[in-house]
Amino acid sequence: MRNLKITLQYDGTNYVGWQRQAEGTSIQALVEDALAPLAGERVVVHGAGRTDAGVHALGQVASASFPGSHEPPVVARALNAVLPPDVRVISVEDAPLDFHARISAIGKTYEYRIVNAAVVSPFLARYAWHVPQPLDIDNMKRAASHLVGSHDFSAFQGAGSDVGSTQRTIRSIDWQGGCRYDLPLLIRLDGDGFLRHMVRNIIGTLVEIGIGRWTADRMVEILASRNRSQAGATAPAHGLFLLQVQYAAG
Amino acid sequence: MRNLKITLQYDGTNYVGWQRQAEGTSIQALVEDALAPLAGERVVVHGAGRTDAGVHALGQVASASFPGSHEPPVVARALNAVLPPDVRVISVEDAPLDFHARISAIGKTYEYRIVNAAVVSPFLARYAWHVPQPLDIDNMKRAASHLVGSHDFSAFQGAGSDVGSTQRTIRSIDWQGGCRYDLPLLIRLDGDGFLRHMVRNIIGTLVEIGIGRWTADRMVEILASRNRSQAGATAPAHGLFLLQVQYAAG
Repeated sequence: MRNLKITLQYDGTNYVGWQRQAEGTSIQALVEDALAPLAGERVVVHGAGRTDAGVHALGQVASASFPGSHEPPVVARALNAVLPPDVRVISVEDAPLDFHARISAIGKTYEYRIVNAAVVSPFLARYAWHVPQPLDIDNMKRAASHLVGSHDFSAFQGAGSDVGSTQRTIRSIDWQGGCRYDLPLLIRLDGDGFLRHMVRNIIGTLVEIGIGRWTADRMVEILASRNRSQAGATAPAHGLFLLQVQYAAG
Repeated sequence: MRNLKITLQYDGTNYVGWQRQAEGTSIQALVEDALAPLAGERVVVHGAGRTDAGVHALGQVASASFPGSHEPPVVARALNAVLPPDVRVISVEDAPLDFHARISAIGKTYEYRIVNAAVVSPFLARYAWHVPQPLDIDNMKRAASHLVGSHDFSAFQGAGSDVGSTQRTIRSIDWQGGCRYDLPLLIRLDGDGFLRHMVRNIIGTLVEIGIGRWTADRMVEILASRNRSQAGATAPAHGLFLLQVQYAAG
């Protein structure tokens, strides 16, 4: 038995998210179904991030125990021959037998894209949240800086979560881009892990601050409250990208 | 009566092209239908470039006689409120009464995008031609250089055309980008005008040369032949973008 590390990109628009669901098409089901004929049996594919419906990925990582003898590049080509064009395998590698895409991950980077202009380019409409109101980016940055470090992020955890600790470390929040319809504002969050909806709830809160409804310092109170109802609304899924998953050098 | 200059972007994937057709949705019909309620009557909207089905635009220009009294920014907002997200009005301006988007144009810039890699990013699949074979870009550039200048471009004119002169001037062909799945090769053609399918037939011919089927010098013979059957196949529509339309400074 071998263990494969599969790196994927997908446009999440048409899918119910990474994880297999009773209804609708998931990325996990697509990859598992594409891998089964090569494996000669049903294979479970574990994703590093359980991206929600509509969330995109530029660097999702998955792992699977694989009984086949095909070389990794052959597996990659075979998967891409079967997968739809909005789901692509970027690479397949042999991984140590104890490698698990989710459990072995030591960090993840997400990017959230906002178009802060009157008009959204047709080429960004599916890939960014349209916020037409003027945003005070400096205030948003100031608020975001309160989140960097190790905190209990309960206030930003989506309902229906069932995790042990709600302590997480955000290593950095980086900002890029600007206020033009064809140039989205990119907010990149790097951390050791993220609770369910955590990035989208942080972004929703930052936008409330950016449009001036709340002060930047309110972020400290929200974080300390550990109360989801204190934070802003969940930002739309289609602005979110899973950019990268980090693993210890092996 | 006023005359409006309308600058548009669109993702051409779901449309039959700029021009109104008996079947299917055209960009022209969408814009005319969106403008009619403001004008209080049916209005004809003339596009600078009659982009084919599937071709995209980052800077299409259209003109329309407009009997309404709304300020240009109000017209822009009203159009965007009605148009689908894959068609966006970037600006509306008052233009001189003799301005006609197509007839007044003195030049156009098109961009063609090729992904020259084994894998196409899901975010480029709708916006670039996938050519997996290795391309000799230097040879393609050398062949393209023969096209710059004033020539009879009959050899690159699509069937079913009915224009007077087939003489056109290509001012420049610029190259950018490279051979990575997430970084398309961009070929930008600037000229005083283009015959039907001319850009896509040039690209199809350049790719034949790039994959080594033809030599770069063959381009000279093809051009001189004035015979469509000598040139390469028409490159797919979805790699083509109308980037910009030029007008004399008014």
